[in-house]
Amino acid sequence: MATAQRMVVIGANAAGMSAASRARRLKGPGELEIVALERGGHSSYSACGIPYWVGGDVADAGDLIARTPREHRERDIDLRLYTEVTELDPDGGRVRVRERGGTSEKWLGYDHLVIATGARPLRPPLPGIDAPGVHGVQSLDDGRALLDALEAAEAADTADGPRRAVVVGAGYIGVEMAEALTRRGYRVTVLDRAEQPMTTLDPDMGRLVREAMRGMGIDVITGATVTAVRTGEDGRARAVATEDAEYEADIVVLGLGVRPETGLAGEAGLPLGESGGLLTDLAMRVRGRENVWAGGDCVEVLDLVSGRTRHVALGTHANKHGQVIGTNIGGGYATFPGVVGTAVSKVCDLEIARTGLLENEAEAIGLRFVTATVESTSRAGYYPGAAPMRVKMLAERRTGRLLGVQIVGREGAGKRVDTAAVALSAGMTVERMTTLDLGYAPPFSPLWDPVLVAARKASAEVRRTGPH
Amino acid sequence: MATAQRMVVIGANAAGMSAASRARRLKGPGELEIVALERGGHSSYSACGIPYWVGGDVADAGDLIARTPREHRERDIDLRLYTEVTELDPDGGRVRVRERGGTSEKWLGYDHLVIATGARPLRPPLPGIDAPGVHGVQSLDDGRALLDALEAAEAADTADGPRRAVVVGAGYIGVEMAEALTRRGYRVTVLDRAEQPMTTLDPDMGRLVREAMRGMGIDVITGATVTAVRTGEDGRARAVATEDAEYEADIVVLGLGVRPETGLAGEAGLPLGESGGLLTDLAMRVRGRENVWAGGDCVEVLDLVSGRTRHVALGTHANKHGQVIGTNIGGGYATFPGVVGTAVSKVCDLEIARTGLLENEAEAIGLRFVTATVESTSRAGYYPGAAPMRVKMLAERRTGRLLGVQIVGREGAGKRVDTAAVALSAGMTVERMTTLDLGYAPPFSPLWDPVLVAARKASAEVRRTGPH
Repeated sequence: MATAQRMVVIGANAAGMSAASRARRLKGPGELEIVALERGGHSSYSACGIPYWVGGDVADAGDLIARTPREHRERDIDLRLYTEVTELDPDGGRVRVRERGGTSEKWLGYDHLVIATGARPLRPPLPGIDAPGVHGVQSLDDGRALLDALEAAEAADTADGPRRAVVVGAGYIGVEMAEALTRRGYRVTVLDRAEQPMTTLDPDMGRLVREAMRGMGIDVITGATVTAVRTGEDGRARAVATEDAEYEADIVVLGLGVRPETGLAGEAGLPLGESGGLLTDLAMRVRGRENVWAGGDCVEVLDLVSGRTRHVALGTHANKHGQVIGTNIGGGYATFPGVVGTAVSKVCDLEIARTGLLENEAEAIGLRFVTATVESTSRAGYYPGAAPMRVKMLAERRTGRLLGVQIVGREGAGKRVDTAAVALSAGMTVERMTTLDLGYAPPFSPLWDPVLVAARKASAEVRRTGPH
Repeated sequence: MATAQRMVVIGANAAGMSAASRARRLKGPGELEIVALERGGHSSYSACGIPYWVGGDVADAGDLIARTPREHRERDIDLRLYTEVTELDPDGGRVRVRERGGTSEKWLGYDHLVIATGARPLRPPLPGIDAPGVHGVQSLDDGRALLDALEAAEAADTADGPRRAVVVGAGYIGVEMAEALTRRGYRVTVLDRAEQPMTTLDPDMGRLVREAMRGMGIDVITGATVTAVRTGEDGRARAVATEDAEYEADIVVLGLGVRPETGLAGEAGLPLGESGGLLTDLAMRVRGRENVWAGGDCVEVLDLVSGRTRHVALGTHANKHGQVIGTNIGGGYATFPGVVGTAVSKVCDLEIARTGLLENEAEAIGLRFVTATVESTSRAGYYPGAAPMRVKMLAERRTGRLLGVQIVGREGAGKRVDTAAVALSAGMTVERMTTLDLGYAPPFSPLWDPVLVAARKASAEVRRTGPH
């Protein structure tokens, strides 16, 4: 009998551990040894759940953990926590490993390497950015630290008005954290450099988000370039300064987005894309490498609408990547065809969703398009709870091909983006979409679903702009 | 200048009046005269809203009216209420018309005829079926009569226990009426001949609906063949008799489904399908006739999954048909490609949806398939309000082509069927579906959307059953 091969996984979260689990289902320990190396102290948790934990919707960090280290080990996966990889040697088929607290390092050989190092939050090099009271929200440990700080402040409360929080960045994490802190009783100010919050939307749609957030008592300051975090005599953060003003803060939360964590991969000469993410083929094999795989927040994926690669940090993709990698290492065959750029979020009862390309993204790759924006409702207009929603649709000129959809509304709005996501995957035209057989009943939809209303208007625009 | 052509529309509801409105937008009164003939006293109302009006969710019948007769007339549509067509003469290009209360009839010529006569509710010829206290719920007048009866009974209430209602038929209308009457304080019994309620679902999924309805205090008696409505000394309905038992009833509601209203069309020799619906081409022109069009609940449409025609009575299709007909008569070009059989409904907080084929429908046309049924949740499991849902998926053997999806769950379950509806339209395989980029965030979905979980399991089944 041949010796078992060794699969080494770097990073024990969605992509890495689903690759490990899937490979283990296909090959037993006698055929495949699986070693997973994790720099931190947790495995397989939902980072996207952290804002809801901080906000109190989720009671316990344990709820965010899909599978504990012990459960992984019971499946014959040798998961090593607090174990950092300090160098990749793809030519030599080995990685250099430093164990917790250790100063010595040693090489670990592999037959298959899975790079699932995730992403790191952006942290601009500003004065005061590392002061106590400035929090990121990327990891469970970040979440714990923030919650400890909030709870300590609440316990020590001296009743001189509400406490103040400043959230830097008005993207998904920023607006979710704004909600979380509002729910905890903070007076929240969100600062963003852009013209509107949610630059994952076109400005005309982002403006709706700003208006709704203001309606919820959240101050949204746009066009605000942060220059420093001001600290008090105790060295703690006390305010956030922009080019124009200063905003008092008992606590500061950074929600500036993330970048692929690919420092080691870059040093080892592995191919990186424009955003710094690893480039792979559709089987999630690092380009040009037979036995090095990568998935999750550290890779770029093919955008099926633009035809280019892009970085999309989402647990749902990471999990799919892991499945594909694990299947392939396990001797099966699977591919990840790419994304269409779907994302959904909420701030209080406002639902925000998009899929496909924004106007500036379509322009950047030379597409010409029409847009259609419609107001509709989540249910038949006469049915109780019918909530307004706005749907914006982009379609290519001449061909009428759907390019993107953005939705801002209340309950029942966000997941309607899935209809457009599937239509994008199928390469449908907006005219074809007008005939889609979507579920209709008064409690669920107007006679024409809002996505179809947008498709009708976009289709008319395509015809109006003519065949040239 | 040429004389205006005349478009005659029979039936002033969704299909007929959207055809009229669309044609009017494309051609002015100088080019096209539009006459709409309606047997009843209302136009353009939402029949599917009637259960919610009866249940008290919708305050007023006026809310169900999308456009009043006056609004139509203001758009130069000559809408004639209480005007019945008694004969079609397609060879002569004319219809015979009887006005309200009139005994004389006269012929009205047309250049384009639109048949939009809708559907009539099934009313089996049983003893007592026409007694006072037995109500249909097809038209606004039916709804008014039922509400009057309910309100009169409530006003005269003698407090000897709750009033009893028997609903005959446990399809969409039946379960919706059961909910409406429960909300009005009735003790409701639903009788159905089938093994499970909702024969628009497979029996294993219909069973969930029965269990949930029982949990809401609604008695669901299946395998029950109604033989008569028993009347009291005053001639009013007092009970419903089946082959096995008798169920007391202060009020009886019929919810047995509908059939195409095509008596006149059949007499005139126009082509009808197996269900009695008119057969049209994709432009909604009655087959073999140049200037006769038909749409809405009186036609059969192409089922894109089975390749056959079927009768689907739904306002959303009727409206689309009307748009297509109006565009074509107005000198444009449009087609209705067909349906995939999507339907969604609710009873209290239970959401019920389907698209594509059921097991027995797939078997009936010679398809061999695998099934996969999964339990999942509407949100991330740790997020508040995550509600269980069951998703069943059918996929063709060998090809893996998606054939159908059924969903039973709570809030957030029903409209997920749209994802599958679009995938069916695009002819996707279940394996392709596993990679769809659907919206993910903890308040909206688990890491794998329930539809994708079902697709994964179905895909594994397709592989397991092999290439033969």
